[in-house]
Amino acid sequence: MPLQQELSVIIPEIAHVNAEIKKTVEEELLSHYQPSQPFLLDGQGKKLRPALFLASAKTHGDDVSELIPLAASLELIHMATLLHDDVVDRAALRRSLPTVNSSEGNKIAVLLGDYLFSKAFSMLTSVGNLEIIQLFSRVVERMSLGELKQQTDAFNLYLTEEEYLDRINQKTAEFMASCCLAGCLTSECPEDLQMPLYHFGLNLGMAFQIIDDMIDFKDLNSRTGKDHFNDLKNGVVTLPLIYVLQAPSNKELMIKWMSNNRNDEDSIANLLDQIKINRGLEYALYRAEQYLNQARCFAGQVPSKEARRNLQLILQLIWSRVEE
Amino acid sequence: MPLQQELSVIIPEIAHVNAEIKKTVEEELLSHYQPSQPFLLDGQGKKLRPALFLASAKTHGDDVSELIPLAASLELIHMATLLHDDVVDRAALRRSLPTVNSSEGNKIAVLLGDYLFSKAFSMLTSVGNLEIIQLFSRVVERMSLGELKQQTDAFNLYLTEEEYLDRINQKTAEFMASCCLAGCLTSECPEDLQMPLYHFGLNLGMAFQIIDDMIDFKDLNSRTGKDHFNDLKNGVVTLPLIYVLQAPSNKELMIKWMSNNRNDEDSIANLLDQIKINRGLEYALYRAEQYLNQARCFAGQVPSKEARRNLQLILQLIWSRVEE
Repeated sequence: MPLQQELSVIIPEIAHVNAEIKKTVEEELLSHYQPSQPFLLDGQGKKLRPALFLASAKTHGDDVSELIPLAASLELIHMATLLHDDVVDRAALRRSLPTVNSSEGNKIAVLLGDYLFSKAFSMLTSVGNLEIIQLFSRVVERMSLGELKQQTDAFNLYLTEEEYLDRINQKTAEFMASCCLAGCLTSECPEDLQMPLYHFGLNLGMAFQIIDDMIDFKDLNSRTGKDHFNDLKNGVVTLPLIYVLQAPSNKELMIKWMSNNRNDEDSIANLLDQIKINRGLEYALYRAEQYLNQARCFAGQVPSKEARRNLQLILQLIWSRVEE
Repeated sequence: MPLQQELSVIIPEIAHVNAEIKKTVEEELLSHYQPSQPFLLDGQGKKLRPALFLASAKTHGDDVSELIPLAASLELIHMATLLHDDVVDRAALRRSLPTVNSSEGNKIAVLLGDYLFSKAFSMLTSVGNLEIIQLFSRVVERMSLGELKQQTDAFNLYLTEEEYLDRINQKTAEFMASCCLAGCLTSECPEDLQMPLYHFGLNLGMAFQIIDDMIDFKDLNSRTGKDHFNDLKNGVVTLPLIYVLQAPSNKELMIKWMSNNRNDEDSIANLLDQIKINRGLEYALYRAEQYLNQARCFAGQVPSKEARRNLQLILQLIWSRVEE
């Protein structure tokens, strides 16, 4: 079952989040721009961030109906970053569909992203308080700084694991942590749950990004619907590669590949073999598992059995992406 | 004298706005990304939006020192839109310097723009109230919708003057109007000045954009430091062109140009001749003057003589761009 469907089983209000996004954005947008193909707004996204927000809000009290617009605005922020990320990474596929930049051009992808960002902040100001708006403007700021750092570090074969972890913290984990914290801040959740929920999201986010980065090295027939080796081709150095680059012979192999035709499938396959032989993917998986275990500990601090179970089920779903 | 210097004579606090931008953004940014060339942050921008904001705040009370961070955040929003606009328009020059997209690449221009947007909203939340944040998130939303509409209308030779005016209202004038309104909302300015100041900014913004669009048709040696005929090459239909396209012979000329090599300087020169012969630029100037006169009337409603004079001087500066 795709992740969104599974998340909807855990948090049924995801369906309302989809409806809210459609209602708020579609009509306004279509009166200004008619896309040549259906795209992002068709509700295909995983809705992981709204799910984390709502699951955290549900730790005390089950009625989250008033929080749906806020949940939707978190997904809009995420959609905006995807649009811009795909421009930056020159990605051609997402969720097995052509990316907006590939079907509509970079111009439209940039402008649609700006529209979704500002729409999200408009929605946040209609429903949220200053603390929430500040939290998420800071999240977007940190994400873009993380992405800039990623560009600075492109093809840096001396990137350390610590630098990598810092970057994915900035570009992914803080957003997820803030979704959990916001769920706590906007509900009846007691203050002493704020930090455990924040750290639940942070550790989950770290694991999520490590697994996402691993998927870039996987076979083309996987279920994620992204095109592959994109990180590698763009020089985005991730954990499996950092691990195997410790061997000087692999560093030489990489330098050779960088100085030749980087799109040559044979030499990519060769690199991939080294990553497999040197157990780069196993190491990344081990680190992801550590973060997931940490997240599980923080989830354990939630008193409500049902809410705790929701958080644990979300962790299981993240883990299940490894087998995709 | 360049516009920024002249604005600084009218609103001396512009210097503090420059310092605030430098202080807030530079260090954080440089720790994540080292540009290959000096760019936007060197304080070359006109600072028209902060000037409008501060001039409006000064209609009642002269101490605006507490408003400097808010003024800086308005300039950051503007800088972010410039970065993304230049990606969208594939512009090579701005203020006589290479654009960020041309010197650092589209990736960096997109990410820097996202960073500046989110930084601006972070600053707004630290100093502003919900009303101000809502005002400017709505402004950014409308600007991006205006830009999307511009893409939808590319090479539309049947665009009406009304549609054009709607678009420049969305993409330029509302921002300037909101800067003036925000100046009123955050100062001792009485409620009955809110609408006159808003409409002062709106009319000034309309005139500003019409004049800006005229500059695209001007000779390459002008002082604005932009590359020219960019709108024309991107199919952005503006007022001088709308005016001359009323003649069927000009529409035919345009269709012929569109079906041939659009970068051919001879055929651009031919089109430009038609715009001159058919007085397209004179007509646009006449419309800009009408808006400036409207703005002057609204400025006249400000009771303080000195504040009124500030607003009138800003109008004169906008007008002086015609002679650049």
